[in-house]
Amino acid sequence: MKFTVRRSAFINYLSDVQRAISSKVAIDILKGIKLNLTMDALILTGSDADISVETIISIGDDHAALEVEQVGSIVLPANFFINIVKKLPEDTLTIEVNERFQATITSGSSEFVINGLDPNEYPRLPEVDTTEQLLVASDVLKQVINQTVMAVSKQEMRPMLTGVHLVIENGELRAVATDSHRLSQRRIQLANADTTMRYDIIVPGRSLKELATMLDANKDDVVIQIAESQVLFMFGHSSFYSRLLEGMYPDTQRLIPTTSETQLELDAPSLMQSIDRASLLSHQGHSNVVRLKMEVDAQTATLFGNSPEIGNVEEEIAFQNLTGNDLEIAFNPDYMKDALRSFGQSTIKISFTQPLRPFILVPTENENDFVQLVTPVRTAD
Amino acid sequence: MKFTVRRSAFINYLSDVQRAISSKVAIDILKGIKLNLTMDALILTGSDADISVETIISIGDDHAALEVEQVGSIVLPANFFINIVKKLPEDTLTIEVNERFQATITSGSSEFVINGLDPNEYPRLPEVDTTEQLLVASDVLKQVINQTVMAVSKQEMRPMLTGVHLVIENGELRAVATDSHRLSQRRIQLANADTTMRYDIIVPGRSLKELATMLDANKDDVVIQIAESQVLFMFGHSSFYSRLLEGMYPDTQRLIPTTSETQLELDAPSLMQSIDRASLLSHQGHSNVVRLKMEVDAQTATLFGNSPEIGNVEEEIAFQNLTGNDLEIAFNPDYMKDALRSFGQSTIKISFTQPLRPFILVPTENENDFVQLVTPVRTAD
Repeated sequence: MKFTVRRSAFINYLSDVQRAISSKVAIDILKGIKLNLTMDALILTGSDADISVETIISIGDDHAALEVEQVGSIVLPANFFINIVKKLPEDTLTIEVNERFQATITSGSSEFVINGLDPNEYPRLPEVDTTEQLLVASDVLKQVINQTVMAVSKQEMRPMLTGVHLVIENGELRAVATDSHRLSQRRIQLANADTTMRYDIIVPGRSLKELATMLDANKDDVVIQIAESQVLFMFGHSSFYSRLLEGMYPDTQRLIPTTSETQLELDAPSLMQSIDRASLLSHQGHSNVVRLKMEVDAQTATLFGNSPEIGNVEEEIAFQNLTGNDLEIAFNPDYMKDALRSFGQSTIKISFTQPLRPFILVPTENENDFVQLVTPVRTAD
Repeated sequence: MKFTVRRSAFINYLSDVQRAISSKVAIDILKGIKLNLTMDALILTGSDADISVETIISIGDDHAALEVEQVGSIVLPANFFINIVKKLPEDTLTIEVNERFQATITSGSSEFVINGLDPNEYPRLPEVDTTEQLLVASDVLKQVINQTVMAVSKQEMRPMLTGVHLVIENGELRAVATDSHRLSQRRIQLANADTTMRYDIIVPGRSLKELATMLDANKDDVVIQIAESQVLFMFGHSSFYSRLLEGMYPDTQRLIPTTSETQLELDAPSLMQSIDRASLLSHQGHSNVVRLKMEVDAQTATLFGNSPEIGNVEEEIAFQNLTGNDLEIAFNPDYMKDALRSFGQSTIKISFTQPLRPFILVPTENENDFVQLVTPVRTAD
């Protein structure tokens, strides 16, 4: 195996594959990155058994300027190899592998000789044997992920809740995540979808976070294929595989209230900053709670944060509309900040029912396709 | 006590004082920042008992736009107070303190009430009762610090070595630091110094690092005053106090070799990058050693790094001059990188005597005023 490649492009490809590789993984060969060189392309693979990423540098890629001298393959220690490539002195590098799986990496006057592993020991990629596929625009998929994944549970007690529930039916994709204190749901219409297509899967939150980061640099549509225990996302030069979580996701539809007693309409970023200030104090108290008091006749909404030792904060918040009944409600400011962040710069409507019942946030512009739910907190006073 | 101040300027002043404050300090009141308001100025003080910083916001400062309504003083919890000020919604803020040391901080519709402490409990600043003073340009002092402080010892075994030795005599300032494996010495001429002035002090490395960071934003000359157990640096609106380390610093002059057998002249940044690459491998081995082999007849200098498990690296390095005897020498690449970094973009001369004797690095442009010394390492092979 021998090839020459342009260093800057190679580093970009390596970084994508590195996302799948974890130094914590128990299987030694998975700490490596697999390089497989054919006459047409160099195929890089990384995996931590849950997530696998494959990316293809073809000889047609002008940025990479790949020159194949002799085909072959090898597994090289990932972090180490990537650090070397990043620090090499020249614009290009040449890698040559001998029959004892030793790789000689040359760039300018610098020459590294690195011990690799037998590529035949490297696990095969999961098989996704379906011809059905979904097509989603890259930025839309990234938004769906970012608007839901922050609500997945961090607790391993109920493994299903560490994933995002994706339901595809009637030409629509619905994504839901909840940690049982808050819930986020986003819907999108699938442009060219077969309306008879039906899937119901749970994708680990960690997988989706890594995928969203990889999508940052991607402008192409993403092709999604779903099999028994795997989901495959294909875009640009890369394939991203994730295992699925097993089990039945709880029925979350019935959790979302459909009526409301008090309605507050305001700009998400402005409320976010007010809550951020109030949480400076609530973070010092052991209950981490912020109170919101709405008085409809007086048309005031006031936020309170309190720490017995340090002090308290009170702030009148600006809003566009306040209607319905007076209400005083308390909530975890961190959940509320996560929810507000997911609306970006939008104006939102918050619909409350009662002090101890969940309330929901929706964008004013599109009330049906995106909802964040937060469960209030009982306070002593 | 009551005043109004512009938030952005106030944050800058607070950040300077915050440098002196450590959340690890045992004395509770030192976790606070002292505010003392007179008719002319607001004086901020922070201290961790080793370092104290005082900074003065005068009513003449247009950026701060300080308005004094009622004089007084208070101690407020530092990190907490600074976070509040950073997150307030408007351009200005007002602070009003009542007789129970409660501070009401108002900005726009946001109002914080914070419990403070009695300013009479706050320790007094050290007294530096001398009229003698040194004057050093801010950028020169920062350079002297940065070129020496990285060589101080991290071990508390010999406390003196955790400081930088400053000797002022014959109108010259000499700064030396060593951790007994490497040494750095920098000299500067004192512009307007009285040549009879004589001081010999050891300043804690940590103090000098904080001072150097504060000097980043300073263009004024720095006035230095030295007392029995304290040194005081004055610049801009700030006074920076540090306690001195007690004891006799070892005689380091005799450690610096005055003859050499092999001389290598090259660009510091280029050698730095080569050593950085070689250290990728040496960091994996348990001895962390890089070898340099110089062959004068062949006019080659080659760097070797090696890790039995992972592999090895070999690199021929570029140089301007190689003279004297052939030599092979081994050293800790991290010490060498620290030393090389301190020369910036300069061309340097490295002078070796023997494989196990210290070697020195000096800038080609100015061989007398700056020297880095590195002790080689014995290797098995």
